[in-house]
Amino acid sequence: MHAHFQAPAPGPANHVALSPVSFFARAGEVHAGDPAVVYGDIRRDWAETARRVRAVAAGLGALGIGRGDTVCVLAPNIPELFEAHFAVPMAGAVLSAINIRLEPDTVAYILDHSDCRLVIVDSALRPTLDTAFAILEREIPVVEIVDPAGPAPEGRGDPTYGALAEGDAPLSDALPDDEWQAIALNYTSGTSGRPKGVIYHHRGAYLMALGTVAAWQVPHRPAYLSVVPMFHCNGWGHPWMMAIVGGKTVFVRQPEPARLFEAIEAEGITHFGAAPVILQMLAESDAAPSASFDPPIQVMTAGAPPPPAILERTAAMGMEVMHVYGLTETYGHISQALPQPGWAGLSPEAQAEQRARQGIAFPMVEAVTVTDRDTGAPVPRDGTTQGEIMVRGNTVMKGYYKDPAATEAAFASGRFATGDAAVVYPDGYIQIRDRLKDVIISGGENVSSVEVEATLYRHPDVQAAAVVAQPDAKWGEVPCAFIELRPDATADADAIIAFCRAHLAGFKTPKTVIFTNIPKTATGKVQKFMLRARAKELS
Amino acid sequence: MHAHFQAPAPGPANHVALSPVSFFARAGEVHAGDPAVVYGDIRRDWAETARRVRAVAAGLGALGIGRGDTVCVLAPNIPELFEAHFAVPMAGAVLSAINIRLEPDTVAYILDHSDCRLVIVDSALRPTLDTAFAILEREIPVVEIVDPAGPAPEGRGDPTYGALAEGDAPLSDALPDDEWQAIALNYTSGTSGRPKGVIYHHRGAYLMALGTVAAWQVPHRPAYLSVVPMFHCNGWGHPWMMAIVGGKTVFVRQPEPARLFEAIEAEGITHFGAAPVILQMLAESDAAPSASFDPPIQVMTAGAPPPPAILERTAAMGMEVMHVYGLTETYGHISQALPQPGWAGLSPEAQAEQRARQGIAFPMVEAVTVTDRDTGAPVPRDGTTQGEIMVRGNTVMKGYYKDPAATEAAFASGRFATGDAAVVYPDGYIQIRDRLKDVIISGGENVSSVEVEATLYRHPDVQAAAVVAQPDAKWGEVPCAFIELRPDATADADAIIAFCRAHLAGFKTPKTVIFTNIPKTATGKVQKFMLRARAKELS
Repeated sequence: MHAHFQAPAPGPANHVALSPVSFFARAGEVHAGDPAVVYGDIRRDWAETARRVRAVAAGLGALGIGRGDTVCVLAPNIPELFEAHFAVPMAGAVLSAINIRLEPDTVAYILDHSDCRLVIVDSALRPTLDTAFAILEREIPVVEIVDPAGPAPEGRGDPTYGALAEGDAPLSDALPDDEWQAIALNYTSGTSGRPKGVIYHHRGAYLMALGTVAAWQVPHRPAYLSVVPMFHCNGWGHPWMMAIVGGKTVFVRQPEPARLFEAIEAEGITHFGAAPVILQMLAESDAAPSASFDPPIQVMTAGAPPPPAILERTAAMGMEVMHVYGLTETYGHISQALPQPGWAGLSPEAQAEQRARQGIAFPMVEAVTVTDRDTGAPVPRDGTTQGEIMVRGNTVMKGYYKDPAATEAAFASGRFATGDAAVVYPDGYIQIRDRLKDVIISGGENVSSVEVEATLYRHPDVQAAAVVAQPDAKWGEVPCAFIELRPDATADADAIIAFCRAHLAGFKTPKTVIFTNIPKTATGKVQKFMLRARAKELS
Repeated sequence: MHAHFQAPAPGPANHVALSPVSFFARAGEVHAGDPAVVYGDIRRDWAETARRVRAVAAGLGALGIGRGDTVCVLAPNIPELFEAHFAVPMAGAVLSAINIRLEPDTVAYILDHSDCRLVIVDSALRPTLDTAFAILEREIPVVEIVDPAGPAPEGRGDPTYGALAEGDAPLSDALPDDEWQAIALNYTSGTSGRPKGVIYHHRGAYLMALGTVAAWQVPHRPAYLSVVPMFHCNGWGHPWMMAIVGGKTVFVRQPEPARLFEAIEAEGITHFGAAPVILQMLAESDAAPSASFDPPIQVMTAGAPPPPAILERTAAMGMEVMHVYGLTETYGHISQALPQPGWAGLSPEAQAEQRARQGIAFPMVEAVTVTDRDTGAPVPRDGTTQGEIMVRGNTVMKGYYKDPAATEAAFASGRFATGDAAVVYPDGYIQIRDRLKDVIISGGENVSSVEVEATLYRHPDVQAAAVVAQPDAKWGEVPCAFIELRPDATADADAIIAFCRAHLAGFKTPKTVIFTNIPKTATGKVQKFMLRARAKELS
């Protein structure tokens, strides 16, 4: 190679760290007068949003938050959490949006494990946080979001988010020195017990957002309804994406069908993302309008394959659903069931089947392949041979926080091993056939069977327990518990369920409890495939 | 900062060099059966295009081309030059597409200065290349493109491009080790004499292509007409962009209005890019269809501000024109006159005026600012105060090839100094008011006044010469020469023009020659603003 090509080294003019903060700074200029945030009576344009975000970033700095500090947020999808997606990185810090449906014990675990330096909490979540602090036996500085649409605060004297946003501390938009710097920390549901902290970096968040505009064909100034929780993969990266296209994001504190339809009609919603279970609720709601949306609303769905019936019903409502696939470890979606020209000639059922596959890689993803678990070679494109889905690309996590062993295991092959088993069709589209890790996906939420089992084992009457997914018309899947009782035990199904409810989030609580001998292999491993078959029969 | 966030280092699973080669590899899979290339009777899908490109890349390797070697191409916009945009980088080499309208002397300079190792030449350009070799007094290995639509080759026994493309040498898609690696070398027109070699890297080419999909809102599978020459900023990065969206690119060897309209109708063209002068030719052509295109064709225009009359006429034809601005040093466009919602209420004239501005930054560009040349501070947004346009971002060139002094000068302020003077309006949109460097833009081609002057000075009768832009209805601008003759000289305007034509490309040849005393400053600098005023009067 001619050294002359190598010679010019990167400098400030031609090498800038990739970061969604750049998109935000641009939106504040280019889209200054375009609406950015709509929430009840609140309407703010991008200029006002930029002013608030910079004030919050400066306010965080004044509270001692600096580079690489973790800021946790416990809030539903409201403007403050959206703003935190820019303000926390602008303060140099790392955003950890915590699942608000988690039980205090897990919240405590995350606050501790994440080395959280500050919690931004909505008043409604304050009791959960207080319980978590009690479990931790220590407190962490708090900034409270006092949402007029939420419960009244108890008035502990903590700084409020509103005061931060009205501050006038000067701050220039700070980009990271290095695009590999962490921007977010998202905890998995933990398929083998405790959740793992997945680190995102600025480079990945930038490429995720820009690649999604291209692949989902998001227009300038979309009207986006915030449904997918921002504590899931940062809302699939959509808050950062909105800054590229100068979108209007509409928030609804309680995402019930009637309120969602109200917002869709009042704000002319063009785009939203939601799990299939939400689409089902919308399709079955009495609040659904009689006329279908025209032009159709663009919907991204993920978390589970959308059942053909849902795809047909949402299509009839005027919703164009694109099914995408991904994991917390991949910033959300990394493949999409991109419609092919040839599908137009298929029957509605056949089309729905095509669209429910996990599809092909997004443009910002290097490779989504399915490989033989023993040889590492790609499986044939025959639609029947199963292998594990492997991912390579710049939107694969930096690693697991403080867990080098798990990071190394995930990346051992030079690709990220998803733990999902799939087949590849002749057209290159992949389809998941089973979950290698026995995760239960209930209402778009991952439930670790191991975690539920661990809770069951804490009940004094339980001798052995195994939890599997049971098909459910509403939630997709629900946990189903198989239990061997101790001699002379008296607990019945209701007592077991009540015990779980006291220790676990509602969506993790088994809906069915079966007292039986649990089938095991010769080496003592539970034969979950047999239990799944029984659970299915009973559903 | 917690060291834990820093800990996980990049590895093959989660850090991949950004390169358009990745888009190409994906298109060969995802868009395998979608049309990629249409040229006369030739129709190739992305799978076939991928096969050919890999064969060419392997063939280049077999000819000794490796990492960092320069491969020059002299060809009009035909499929081979499109394929070279992927094949040359896949071979690890650097693509230098040379302006086919250049005179042999400059071609020779570029072949030499670029350290060219191989020339891919269309048979029609072989005479130019031979003359360049004669000037150089050496030859460089040649691969000849034998285009059935071009002239018959002389049959020198050089390898043909067609043979390379049919080869079956195995090659896996090679990504660069480092995204900062050079991918292309584009020579400027040279505003102060010899052209400068502008180095592009893989990272910039990737971001340029992906950012353009977002900002121009390019849909999946567009039908793109190849009009903007690929020797200009690699066709504004559009060949690489087509791989992201799986587009069909339609080629026309002679881009005359009748043939372009023919292609537009036959292939259902949805998008193209072209200089305003081409849009004018289309608007004035007898071949223009009577009905306007519906839906409108999306057109990107650059090189000069589109005159309002052209914007109105193309709009009437069913073409939605987006004006963008950029330079060879910025991979092409870095700002766009993004239409704002408020423009809809303006008169057609006022709208055209808004759309003819240079606008605001593309999303992949960090900052396009206008700064005071003395203080470096941003000029006020008053629409009248002039400053120099400065650019920062990842789509700013790596530097000038073998010219560290020019590179340093361009980047001295920590931003790239464009040499263009502009104002900023209250909405943040910029508008160019003058060219600091006196470049003449004729038919979308940059003409260096200094280069033309240097040629004039070689005429024995010329004592002094100065060349400025003269407004021209067809070409936008043409060179206008002011000459002081030596005593007893006999040359007339026709003789001067004939002399220039013999030594310069046609578009660089002055259309008007004026014999006069050239006005100079006290320090002897030519007062070009006075000459421009006279040239304008005479136009």
